[in-house]
Amino acid sequence: MKAAQIDSIDGGSVTTPRGFYAGATYAGIKKKDKNSLDLGILFSEEPCTAAALFTTNRIKSAPVLLCQQRLQNDRAVAIIANSGCANASTGEQGLADAAEMTALAANSLGAAPEDVLVASTGVIGQPLPMKLIKAGISQIVLSSDGGHELARAIMTTDTVPKETAVTAGTGNSEFTIGGVAKGSGMIHPNLATMFCFLTTDAAVESDFLKSALRRAVDISFNMISVDTDTSPSDTVLIMANGLAENKPISKNSQPADTFQQALEQVCIYLAKAIARDGEGATKLIEVTVNGAISPVEAKLAARTVVSSPLVKSAVHGADPNWGRILAALGRSGAEVVESKIDLYIGEIGLVKGGRPLSYRERDVVRVLKQSEVPINVHLNLGTASATAWGCDLSEEYVTINSQYMT
Amino acid sequence: MKAAQIDSIDGGSVTTPRGFYAGATYAGIKKKDKNSLDLGILFSEEPCTAAALFTTNRIKSAPVLLCQQRLQNDRAVAIIANSGCANASTGEQGLADAAEMTALAANSLGAAPEDVLVASTGVIGQPLPMKLIKAGISQIVLSSDGGHELARAIMTTDTVPKETAVTAGTGNSEFTIGGVAKGSGMIHPNLATMFCFLTTDAAVESDFLKSALRRAVDISFNMISVDTDTSPSDTVLIMANGLAENKPISKNSQPADTFQQALEQVCIYLAKAIARDGEGATKLIEVTVNGAISPVEAKLAARTVVSSPLVKSAVHGADPNWGRILAALGRSGAEVVESKIDLYIGEIGLVKGGRPLSYRERDVVRVLKQSEVPINVHLNLGTASATAWGCDLSEEYVTINSQYMT
Repeated sequence: MKAAQIDSIDGGSVTTPRGFYAGATYAGIKKKDKNSLDLGILFSEEPCTAAALFTTNRIKSAPVLLCQQRLQNDRAVAIIANSGCANASTGEQGLADAAEMTALAANSLGAAPEDVLVASTGVIGQPLPMKLIKAGISQIVLSSDGGHELARAIMTTDTVPKETAVTAGTGNSEFTIGGVAKGSGMIHPNLATMFCFLTTDAAVESDFLKSALRRAVDISFNMISVDTDTSPSDTVLIMANGLAENKPISKNSQPADTFQQALEQVCIYLAKAIARDGEGATKLIEVTVNGAISPVEAKLAARTVVSSPLVKSAVHGADPNWGRILAALGRSGAEVVESKIDLYIGEIGLVKGGRPLSYRERDVVRVLKQSEVPINVHLNLGTASATAWGCDLSEEYVTINSQYMT
Repeated sequence: MKAAQIDSIDGGSVTTPRGFYAGATYAGIKKKDKNSLDLGILFSEEPCTAAALFTTNRIKSAPVLLCQQRLQNDRAVAIIANSGCANASTGEQGLADAAEMTALAANSLGAAPEDVLVASTGVIGQPLPMKLIKAGISQIVLSSDGGHELARAIMTTDTVPKETAVTAGTGNSEFTIGGVAKGSGMIHPNLATMFCFLTTDAAVESDFLKSALRRAVDISFNMISVDTDTSPSDTVLIMANGLAENKPISKNSQPADTFQQALEQVCIYLAKAIARDGEGATKLIEVTVNGAISPVEAKLAARTVVSSPLVKSAVHGADPNWGRILAALGRSGAEVVESKIDLYIGEIGLVKGGRPLSYRERDVVRVLKQSEVPINVHLNLGTASATAWGCDLSEEYVTINSQYMT
């Protein structure tokens, strides 16, 4: 069997797959800075099979509640998204506003309101400025290159837009997957909302689309500490419009693996982009745990290390304080035996069988000063592995978050 | 029945209870600054009934492993403690060094080595400098006022010593409880070691002493996020020498409640002192959750709010970003219903039934600028309550922790 080819597309965006259009405007919801955009629409010319994952927070924003209801039929044609106001903790009025926002977008798009989804990010507890949103929607011009504008419109404390696209397939079943994400708060759990909107021109059966999304999210966004520590608005959505005219991909069909791999590649790319752009971050930390007794424990250990404020602070200062990594492993809940642990920073072995090795500190410092810092742990207890991503913790993080509202 | 009187003692320390002596020296284990002390001994002239709680981290320091073994007979007469080196991740050599440290202290005190305990805090993965420790022990002079020196000798990034004593009793059964603690890292879980050494001249039966300590720790040190997120060295120890000559206090004896209350008062005082002195902290945050459906859920909710980096950053900047408090409650795992939540900052109501109230921002900012910031949540689902303590998150925290080793 020929291996599937998956290629990333230069300048790819959420509108790279066939039949997707997007646009954005500055409606005045968030404070203006240069190039500000705060309201955008993503639209497919054909109805899509859609699947989504939402926050597990018991407090859910109005847009999340509305989307959960609308996606019961696994169908969507568009999503409207804004930054600057989360429409969370806004009660009945918030639900009415979210519904009206989709109705206004539907009217502008010539679509049915029940096929339009909505996502909002920003300050919690303030009502949506519906006049601004109404006026803004009328200004949005959709285009097949509009993915880049949408990427900017959903940014809050993000410093860079996050988007990508890949093309994949074997022979006559070629398809494209695009994605856009926002989120800058993954430096710590629960910090800020994350969105990821994914598009594909592949035809995909609904059940497989759901399971493929779940699997891809589990090894990407859920490995940057987003899972149980979610904001009330977190949303990952995929829309598949079928314009690649392939036979719908299902669990056992031939391109299922290729689709899964391509989707995972897009999700990991965007998840890493979020981690790298964590508030105040100066570098990406990649923690890989090998030799755990189960995949669940490998994930737990990797996530605990990458989210430890002590480890993050040490990486920020390029301080080779490996005892903190061991302490994080020890409290992670994963089975660990100190005398079996090997630890590497980059290629440099620091600990072997739980005991410090002799190493040249300046070599370790050099790795810790890189823009990507790999931390590799071998628990030597089993065969399971996992990788988690995060970023360093800087003084700037605190500065940003002590002045968010005021 | 006459209510028990519990009075705190001005200038009280761990040597305030009858028959306890302490002393400390600068042995050269940690970097010297003015008034540096890094090695101390606490000694009782009578053998003590002892109970202790240790870290739940799967990686335990050599002193913790040794103490667990020695306390199987519930008996101790002394503890030797140092700062500057944790003797953790040091393998067989570490265990041998810990045992030798107690033997040296025992020799100096004229006690049996198996009655001497040990505690070490500081950098992980480096061997104890045994020559310095041996020389240091010979310099220590014990006195009945030496508790203050011990309090300084166990400090690492602590900025103030933490000690207290109370006297309690009804009529002819009067006793004293003293305590000393260290720990500055509770601004985030797993940051640094915490020690608390408690002394009492009360005679206390061993089983009751254990359960009383567990109960007191559960509502004090375990409410500043120390429980599952422990360092390899965390130690809480109580020694009861019986010099008050009371009938040994047991579960059902008349002074049991008074002893429990007095012990809780000492532990809460010291726990708050640790939270207030968190690395980089400028204020104490006290989160009380009422109306939870169970005590476990009340604790979970209170701890999640007080340890949220977003809430801590907002309090640091006196930013009334109450949405972050609701988001933390929502992800805490405790049962919450958004439309039932009431929230107060100090006496000021910000949220009623999940909806924002109108309030004067400058009034809330004034409370957030206090040295103690009370956050009160009413879940209105049940009758259980809990209080948790923490501190704000400042830029200084990151600065401290990015330069700890180097």
